[in-house]
Amino acid sequence: MSRPHSTPAFGKAKETAVTFPLMIDSNMASAGTVHDGDFWAVIPAGGSGTRLWPLSRSTNPKFLLPLLSERSLLQRTADRLEGLAPPQRTLIVCGPAHGAPVAEQLPHFPTTNLVVEPTPRGSGPAISLAAAIIARLDPEAVMGSFAADHEVRDEEAFTCAVRVAIEAAKAGWLVTIGLPPVRPETGYGYIESTEEVIVTTDDGSAFRSMRFVEKPDLARARTYVESGRFLWNASMFIWKVRTFLDELAQLQPDLHLGVTQIAAAWGTPEREQVVAEVWPTLPEVTIDEGVMERTPRVAVVPAEMGWSDVGDWHGLGTLLDSDEDGMSARADLVHTRSRDSLVWSETNRVIALVGLENVVVVDTPDALLIVNRSEAQEVRSVVGALTRSLRSEVL
Amino acid sequence: MSRPHSTPAFGKAKETAVTFPLMIDSNMASAGTVHDGDFWAVIPAGGSGTRLWPLSRSTNPKFLLPLLSERSLLQRTADRLEGLAPPQRTLIVCGPAHGAPVAEQLPHFPTTNLVVEPTPRGSGPAISLAAAIIARLDPEAVMGSFAADHEVRDEEAFTCAVRVAIEAAKAGWLVTIGLPPVRPETGYGYIESTEEVIVTTDDGSAFRSMRFVEKPDLARARTYVESGRFLWNASMFIWKVRTFLDELAQLQPDLHLGVTQIAAAWGTPEREQVVAEVWPTLPEVTIDEGVMERTPRVAVVPAEMGWSDVGDWHGLGTLLDSDEDGMSARADLVHTRSRDSLVWSETNRVIALVGLENVVVVDTPDALLIVNRSEAQEVRSVVGALTRSLRSEVL
Repeated sequence: MSRPHSTPAFGKAKETAVTFPLMIDSNMASAGTVHDGDFWAVIPAGGSGTRLWPLSRSTNPKFLLPLLSERSLLQRTADRLEGLAPPQRTLIVCGPAHGAPVAEQLPHFPTTNLVVEPTPRGSGPAISLAAAIIARLDPEAVMGSFAADHEVRDEEAFTCAVRVAIEAAKAGWLVTIGLPPVRPETGYGYIESTEEVIVTTDDGSAFRSMRFVEKPDLARARTYVESGRFLWNASMFIWKVRTFLDELAQLQPDLHLGVTQIAAAWGTPEREQVVAEVWPTLPEVTIDEGVMERTPRVAVVPAEMGWSDVGDWHGLGTLLDSDEDGMSARADLVHTRSRDSLVWSETNRVIALVGLENVVVVDTPDALLIVNRSEAQEVRSVVGALTRSLRSEVL
Repeated sequence: MSRPHSTPAFGKAKETAVTFPLMIDSNMASAGTVHDGDFWAVIPAGGSGTRLWPLSRSTNPKFLLPLLSERSLLQRTADRLEGLAPPQRTLIVCGPAHGAPVAEQLPHFPTTNLVVEPTPRGSGPAISLAAAIIARLDPEAVMGSFAADHEVRDEEAFTCAVRVAIEAAKAGWLVTIGLPPVRPETGYGYIESTEEVIVTTDDGSAFRSMRFVEKPDLARARTYVESGRFLWNASMFIWKVRTFLDELAQLQPDLHLGVTQIAAAWGTPEREQVVAEVWPTLPEVTIDEGVMERTPRVAVVPAEMGWSDVGDWHGLGTLLDSDEDGMSARADLVHTRSRDSLVWSETNRVIALVGLENVVVVDTPDALLIVNRSEAQEVRSVVGALTRSLRSEVL
């Protein structure tokens, strides 16, 4: 699979100028031998992780935080993907405020592989632009897109699933990895699978998908879980860039046109001007709604891999070690008559918990959160209230 | 009641030396005309208020804290007593670490009126020494002792009750003020009253007391409350110093001898030496156990006065203003789906509460407490655990 010829282009770009990342030697892209495409990884690193306030902030979003080890969720995602695609074939899409910290956290990645969005416009423009840029470098490439701020416990299961997905992608499918639901979650989208096998390898099988469905209400989520046919959509997408761009041209012609224009200028002196003109005109659409819910060419690889979106403090708490009372502490904690709680401190204060159950305490130098775990989603409303009060110093 | 002749002695002492407080002009004490004694106030300022950790600390105990207004509990106690005894006739008994902050909080009190105990030995030695010192200055004095860290809402009711108690004291009784119990509290002692009236004035009546009883268990506390005969003992004692010292000589002869020796040396150059020799030998006994539970000469003045011992965070919470959701905040608080909670901050952090009921949050620069209000008493065990871990920096 290794194709050294694509790497020098990035090496060259790196030497040229950080302000013109992904300087493309267009001769290089078209001069190669015929091949069936290398695997490229794309890591959309967007969103601030509002529900993990006050740890996550606009300038220090969830994906930059070392929540589950000394490495951040972004670093863990990059580590997980390195066995599938080397740093030279990995693009990270992020906002302008996060380019520097991303480069700092991933020093062995070419800074030219950072695709900096001028403003956030959702996953559609972000992932489509990455696909268009890769297509210019390697028209036969298979790419896989994986969120920067999710957790996967079982990395081997993850790698096997991606390998199956790559085989299905090579056969012309838009492939997603689907996670067997463990509860009637209303916060995720679902994928309905059929029993029609598309490919089978030693690592598993890909099935034709009946449909992508948006976040359901609780009653519907229950029927989904009971049916056994529905899988969680964790926004893991694997496809040949050519397949995807062809589908995008059909379903989202404006978006296709825009990202093609930007990708054409990406390694040139005109890049900034083209981005400034075109980016604000791109439709704000998600990949799910804009493409996956509208195409019949979707396949799904079901895989259990200990996945979590680390979505809120309750979810994070379930991923951390706890003692026999269910207490998790990243803090100088003293507790009595307390259980099933998480105490996280970024200060060196003593924290004492007395007679409490099922709470999360998050202690930072300028903001303190105490939340009932059952209402962890509601942290969003606190951030909303602070936003309305113009308290940007703690957001 | 005003007897200007006793004041100059303190004025003189104040000019002489702070290290020899209460310099007594013994000629002055015995040279006067016959009189029935002025009223003197004694404020024992001991105890750190462990259950109000982390706000109360060994160096900044409960009585020094401005918990209910901008004035500390000590200042509020002194303010309350000023109508009964001027600063010149008020003694404050405290530990060596607290002399300076007490003097700072009460700048209009003669520093010579601070009686500094070398080590804490309970209320028996503290109050007995104050009585012995007052007796040397004014043998016919009536004194009243009132804890420095309790709250009284209805100051007029308090003043009326003390006036009645003074009349009963002049008739030779050891008088206490008893508070009608509003719940079967197991944390206080009780006073059983008889219906035998000792004195009646326009302000109310004093009754002979049947007995002082120690903190009961819950079942007994319930029968006490139902009986209507039992009152809470809030350690408010009013007596002629002569009556008290005579009783002390009978019931606690060693303590009587010791405080008499110290009082005799109090205003002299020998004071420090005598204190150093005698104080450590004094029996560690409370006034309740050592005297009040053993004497038949006890009277009680029942009085409702909105009293609280401000004993723990739940109790403090009930004294503070709250909004329609029962939320009390001395903090930059944002809350959602929360009620009946108290948030107290000594920092300028934003504090957010989500989905919580019946909790207290106390935020200080080096320690944070979160406690279920129903278990507010258990804060003591946290302080115990920190003490055992030698965490004196936060105690």
